[in-house]
Amino acid sequence: MPVFLGSSDADFDARFDELLGSKREASVEVGDTVARIIADVREKGDAAVLALTEKFDGQSLTPETMRFSDTEIDAAYRDVPADVRSALELAHERITAHHEKQLPNDHIYQDHLGVTLGTRWTAIEAVGLYVPGGLASYPSSVLMNAVPAKVAGVDRLAMVVPTPKGVVNPAILAAARIAGVTEIYRIGGAQAVAALAYGTETIAPVYKIVGPGNAYVATAKRQVFGKVGIDMIAGPSEVLVIADDSANPTWVAADLIAQAEHGAGAQSILMTTSQKLADAVVAEVERQIATLRAPENARQGWDDFGAVIVIDTLDHAVKLANRIASEHVELALDDPHPMIPRIRNAGAIFVGHHTPEAIGDYVGGSNHVLPTARSARFASGLGVLDFVKRTSILQCPPDALSELAKATVSLAESEGLEGHGRSVSIRLNR
Amino acid sequence: MPVFLGSSDADFDARFDELLGSKREASVEVGDTVARIIADVREKGDAAVLALTEKFDGQSLTPETMRFSDTEIDAAYRDVPADVRSALELAHERITAHHEKQLPNDHIYQDHLGVTLGTRWTAIEAVGLYVPGGLASYPSSVLMNAVPAKVAGVDRLAMVVPTPKGVVNPAILAAARIAGVTEIYRIGGAQAVAALAYGTETIAPVYKIVGPGNAYVATAKRQVFGKVGIDMIAGPSEVLVIADDSANPTWVAADLIAQAEHGAGAQSILMTTSQKLADAVVAEVERQIATLRAPENARQGWDDFGAVIVIDTLDHAVKLANRIASEHVELALDDPHPMIPRIRNAGAIFVGHHTPEAIGDYVGGSNHVLPTARSARFASGLGVLDFVKRTSILQCPPDALSELAKATVSLAESEGLEGHGRSVSIRLNR
Repeated sequence: MPVFLGSSDADFDARFDELLGSKREASVEVGDTVARIIADVREKGDAAVLALTEKFDGQSLTPETMRFSDTEIDAAYRDVPADVRSALELAHERITAHHEKQLPNDHIYQDHLGVTLGTRWTAIEAVGLYVPGGLASYPSSVLMNAVPAKVAGVDRLAMVVPTPKGVVNPAILAAARIAGVTEIYRIGGAQAVAALAYGTETIAPVYKIVGPGNAYVATAKRQVFGKVGIDMIAGPSEVLVIADDSANPTWVAADLIAQAEHGAGAQSILMTTSQKLADAVVAEVERQIATLRAPENARQGWDDFGAVIVIDTLDHAVKLANRIASEHVELALDDPHPMIPRIRNAGAIFVGHHTPEAIGDYVGGSNHVLPTARSARFASGLGVLDFVKRTSILQCPPDALSELAKATVSLAESEGLEGHGRSVSIRLNR
Repeated sequence: MPVFLGSSDADFDARFDELLGSKREASVEVGDTVARIIADVREKGDAAVLALTEKFDGQSLTPETMRFSDTEIDAAYRDVPADVRSALELAHERITAHHEKQLPNDHIYQDHLGVTLGTRWTAIEAVGLYVPGGLASYPSSVLMNAVPAKVAGVDRLAMVVPTPKGVVNPAILAAARIAGVTEIYRIGGAQAVAALAYGTETIAPVYKIVGPGNAYVATAKRQVFGKVGIDMIAGPSEVLVIADDSANPTWVAADLIAQAEHGAGAQSILMTTSQKLADAVVAEVERQIATLRAPENARQGWDDFGAVIVIDTLDHAVKLANRIASEHVELALDDPHPMIPRIRNAGAIFVGHHTPEAIGDYVGGSNHVLPTARSARFASGLGVLDFVKRTSILQCPPDALSELAKATVSLAESEGLEGHGRSVSIRLNR
């Protein structure tokens, strides 16, 4: 049973706070295990990675078979059904087109003193892409991670994907090939993260690691952060549908189910000004879940963390939505546009009745790697900016240096950094 | 004694690798202590923060005296010598003007199917700013951290600064006041990071924490990452001066000393095509260090991690510089401009003979919080973009949804997400 809240309930605020604070992910304390794995890979390189892969994935590899050959990747591409392959190609095309618009421009200018100041952007040279094996092995995620890196101009993209007992999803390799990723290793877990961060005899180190993974992978990323860059730590997926009585309960129910079917930890919230819609959606969710071929995940997601919140006004909805800071916000409203600027904290906003969140997961063009667990209050979805970096440029002509010298020396002296001041004043004596 | 390397030496590559790998910071394992402190603050709030402040800073505070009053901040501002105050005002003005140019623009457009796609930027609502006490307590760093947040439009900026035994540097408070920061707490260490991340009765939680700190602070930031956003973990400062025989050895030596005087772990590297310049600079460094009022830090920085590298060509310098990926790169060259685009990995580039790095530390206008320890290979200096976040906008008109439905359903089905496909197909039946 989902949670039902009404803004006229006496205990509404307390129950909303409880909903906000609900923990949807078991904390798994694997810090020490992961630290040992990383140390092992740093010390023994390939040998450690191979031994750990044998232990955890039941796969016996060699430095030669650790990497997929081009022939294997090509074969996987051909093995994928034609409709899926062309869907991946369409998704690739649309994601590429959208991300190309995110490429930042250098900005270098002179100020009134003649000082040249600027920001110069360059791509990161080498990036590692973690792709989970097993259940959460999504070819669409390969595109969403690889395409912005390619668009950014990353020179080398190294992908890792565990293949427990040798099982590999060909669509993963096909998506990689479509995105132009050809350096792919059949390894996973903390050992793969360590191999990417520190390098082995076979795998050259990368400078940043992106992509989702289980608790071991997430903990390993956290531990190698600093040595390499990392993206956000992804949590369970979530949607907040804000609806008025213009919304179609059948469509809204389908969207809530689409989120809930991610299973353990997934959260679907309906927030509406219409009690009638709320009642109709709840009945529809039950009806539709029963017709799924495999209803278990949606059932669990909806029962564990589903919520229906009836509020009096859209103003109230805005306040609550900004506190929830959902990964996905749908505006199933008669007049959605005035709401867009008011929803400040959201990973992505899906506007109007004809934009189900699932479009954004696959072929909309925007990225589906978005901030979860309320982190949209401070974080952004994945994009080209995650694969580039800024360098400041500064150039002083001699006159400007003289102009700025006094203040520099005052501040340097006040901070006890005599040498800093002198590096400026010494240039004035000529 | 600094390290001397010549590209004609037989063991050059090995010794350069050794220089790259040199560890300039002791690893301090404080993970468990920090975890206990964070748990304590989460559980007991103010009481834990006050007890830990008494224990570590020897300061007995109450919830009321934990925060600096406006009167105290105003008094500190007046206590700062006039030349330092006006230098801070000039720095504030120039840093603000430069960072205003970093404000990103929303970009929302329609594609050929009529799909509206876009990126919308908003400021983070609440940010915490950590300012170290003691030796490394720099008012310039307050400006460098606070100004981009203010320019970004952050609503609430909460600053913490430890004041061991009650000692506070008035210039820190003056810089905060000039930057418009008025919510300042006299607490520090892991307990201050925990208070900012989780909140206490007195301190409302923030969504991101920035600013440098010791091993406890850095470890605490790493542990609260995910609950809140954090900036990079800062390491010891460093400079790489690339010089040809047009460089003035006196000026180059002063720049190397300015970096070395940051003391423990700081690194100054001279890379030059001129053996003559190298010799002259080394002699000048000795001469100038001896004339410093407090030569100890520069002496230690130069002796422990200083390096002089003589190479044959600037092409070689480019290759090595990109591997070093220094926080600061100075181009003390006759013709520096062709080198700028070739230096791909650098936090900031200081161009020409009249741009000592110290200008960038204070009043140049660019940010002095820059990636250290080779992280310029994947990270950027602090800027406005660190205080804003992106939200994707997606809107499909009904026709576009029909157009994209087939591919979405194919991909959803192939990923075992029937509900995703259905949320699209169900909308086509009307």
